[in-house]
Amino acid sequence: MPESIPSHSVGLVQPQHLYFDQALKLDCGQTLNKYELVYETYGQLNANKSNAILICHALSGDHHAAGYHSMEDRKPGWWESAIGSGKPFDTDKFFIVSSNNIGGCKGSTGPNTLNPDTNKPFGADFPIVTVNDWVHSQAQLADKLGIEQWAAVVGGSMGGMQVIQWSINYPERLRNAVVIAAAPRLSAQNIAFNEVARQAIITDPDFHDGHFYAHNVVPERGLKLARMLGHITYLSDESMGKKFGRELREGKIKFGYDIEFQVESYLRYQGQAFVHRFDANTYLLMTKALDYFDPAAEHGDSLSAAFEKAQARFFVASFTTDWRFSPKRSQEIVRALLEANKSVSYVEIEAPQGHDAFLIPIPNYFSALQAFMNNVAEECH
Amino acid sequence: MPESIPSHSVGLVQPQHLYFDQALKLDCGQTLNKYELVYETYGQLNANKSNAILICHALSGDHHAAGYHSMEDRKPGWWESAIGSGKPFDTDKFFIVSSNNIGGCKGSTGPNTLNPDTNKPFGADFPIVTVNDWVHSQAQLADKLGIEQWAAVVGGSMGGMQVIQWSINYPERLRNAVVIAAAPRLSAQNIAFNEVARQAIITDPDFHDGHFYAHNVVPERGLKLARMLGHITYLSDESMGKKFGRELREGKIKFGYDIEFQVESYLRYQGQAFVHRFDANTYLLMTKALDYFDPAAEHGDSLSAAFEKAQARFFVASFTTDWRFSPKRSQEIVRALLEANKSVSYVEIEAPQGHDAFLIPIPNYFSALQAFMNNVAEECH
Repeated sequence: MPESIPSHSVGLVQPQHLYFDQALKLDCGQTLNKYELVYETYGQLNANKSNAILICHALSGDHHAAGYHSMEDRKPGWWESAIGSGKPFDTDKFFIVSSNNIGGCKGSTGPNTLNPDTNKPFGADFPIVTVNDWVHSQAQLADKLGIEQWAAVVGGSMGGMQVIQWSINYPERLRNAVVIAAAPRLSAQNIAFNEVARQAIITDPDFHDGHFYAHNVVPERGLKLARMLGHITYLSDESMGKKFGRELREGKIKFGYDIEFQVESYLRYQGQAFVHRFDANTYLLMTKALDYFDPAAEHGDSLSAAFEKAQARFFVASFTTDWRFSPKRSQEIVRALLEANKSVSYVEIEAPQGHDAFLIPIPNYFSALQAFMNNVAEECH
Repeated sequence: MPESIPSHSVGLVQPQHLYFDQALKLDCGQTLNKYELVYETYGQLNANKSNAILICHALSGDHHAAGYHSMEDRKPGWWESAIGSGKPFDTDKFFIVSSNNIGGCKGSTGPNTLNPDTNKPFGADFPIVTVNDWVHSQAQLADKLGIEQWAAVVGGSMGGMQVIQWSINYPERLRNAVVIAAAPRLSAQNIAFNEVARQAIITDPDFHDGHFYAHNVVPERGLKLARMLGHITYLSDESMGKKFGRELREGKIKFGYDIEFQVESYLRYQGQAFVHRFDANTYLLMTKALDYFDPAAEHGDSLSAAFEKAQARFFVASFTTDWRFSPKRSQEIVRALLEANKSVSYVEIEAPQGHDAFLIPIPNYFSALQAFMNNVAEECH
């Protein structure tokens, strides 16, 4: 619990809810006749509504990007480092909106919310959603908030994919696109890791074909394994080496299967903590959305063709030791944007932290981001 | 089934068994009062027993390194490409010995063999073994076969670790050491992957604390996950991309959790096949032996100090896209050997196949190996 809220935090925030009665036709062919989005906002919308920023979250993220929900909260939102007064997404200048994706598990309509047809949780009956679906629902959110055009749409990792999709779907509705540690589509290896995580969940006897709520259990083993595996891909070999090395928790080898190395302790702890805050069906949905994302596919496999109608200025950032979405993947995005004659700034940040670097206030990264966002702010008249 | 045995194969081979009545004191503090090793040999031992080569197997390998067990065999031994007439480990010149490690599941004393104290399978009661233990048991095998000195001890991956240990434990008992795609110890990331695999097995309800034999089940889910994960680390991002890309098995997205991408199909198939040929307790033991391997640890964390008494000439090989044990890890071995004033040849092979490259007859790799082994053969008088 913070004894007092740090001074550059947005402070206490309250999630808000919006109900949508208009149908959302999904890529999978199904339709959500109505749905709900939970979101938070930070900063003030200016008079002509030109200073709004949309933050898109990553696989295990949610709408709670900054601030605290109560004085008892032990941790702030997931991007506290970047959102607040004087920070890259400066709440003195911007009105920031952050929503939980559909299919999520933190309040937006998803597998753990009630299916109006059955009055039971959707569970595995929740339709598979895509990045494209998320972007459509976020556009409906923008409509309700009266935001015709975002000053910027921003996201890291899976969030960056939503930014790319925004720039393609609604060229006139965003002036800037901030794509951090993302990829234009998953590689076979990326899909393979997702598949192992999914199989861990699906084959857990407590998964009950996705209807575990009715059995009053959670597929704890599977979700824990998925998270442990995820964590390996979020950190670099280098950062894991620096953080844990081969250090033994109790100084000596015990010749057993309890925790011996520090890295094992870390992974089991991370896995266990995740089980209590995340939903297994949501995990499946998010990994599927990642696997399917491939904007080039509809344009003859040409990413530059996909970007043809984009109007935003792009800021793309990658991190040297990120092996989940390596700099090479960001460079594919940059190359396609340049081929399509779009405006793009690209920074490759020297950072040992791997994929997780996008969440960390690394000086070179944040100063580049801040410089770009200062320009964005200057146009918000 | 081979219609006929290929001409450069060692042909039909028969596993042999040796029983050891002498006690094997293990690093973990326990003792195996007696044990059995299963092994195969290829080629002829010369009159003065100077042409013997020991092949050490990797995590999921065994004694069956070359040839066929019957005309019905669909596949030859795991290193068929390298062992045989005219091949790098030339059976016209060498007498080759390949044994299943203790703790294995293919005939040597291990968790699926009978515990003489209980007359039931050891299961989880089988003691945790180390690379050092394996090398001691292999030395007892050499004694029984009358081989005082190996012309070479050879291995890839975990096999390479056994070679390193041989050169340290029995400097006078090998003239040459061939260490391929290995590492002097696991990194935190390597241990992390092993830990996820172990947790997958141990948390499978069918594991029954390692005594699943008595329940007539196998922890299929866990072992399958472990193998799927292993496969991702054996292949490179590049080779997976080339092999599978984002190809869909049925040409279009189906918005479900059945197999969609080819890479998913491959992984599930590999996982399922493994369940039928491997033992979950052995998998656990092998990963632990990998985690513990750290010859430098006993020498003030100095690998060159560990090598001080080694007498063998070394051949070290690595592969550019191997990210499980990258070239950097082999270079650590080479650097330590040079610091210790040992003779070492090192080749870094340009190869897209990742860690698995060590099993593949890549021309530059095999010609380097063959050149080294030709020199080894010339000394075998």
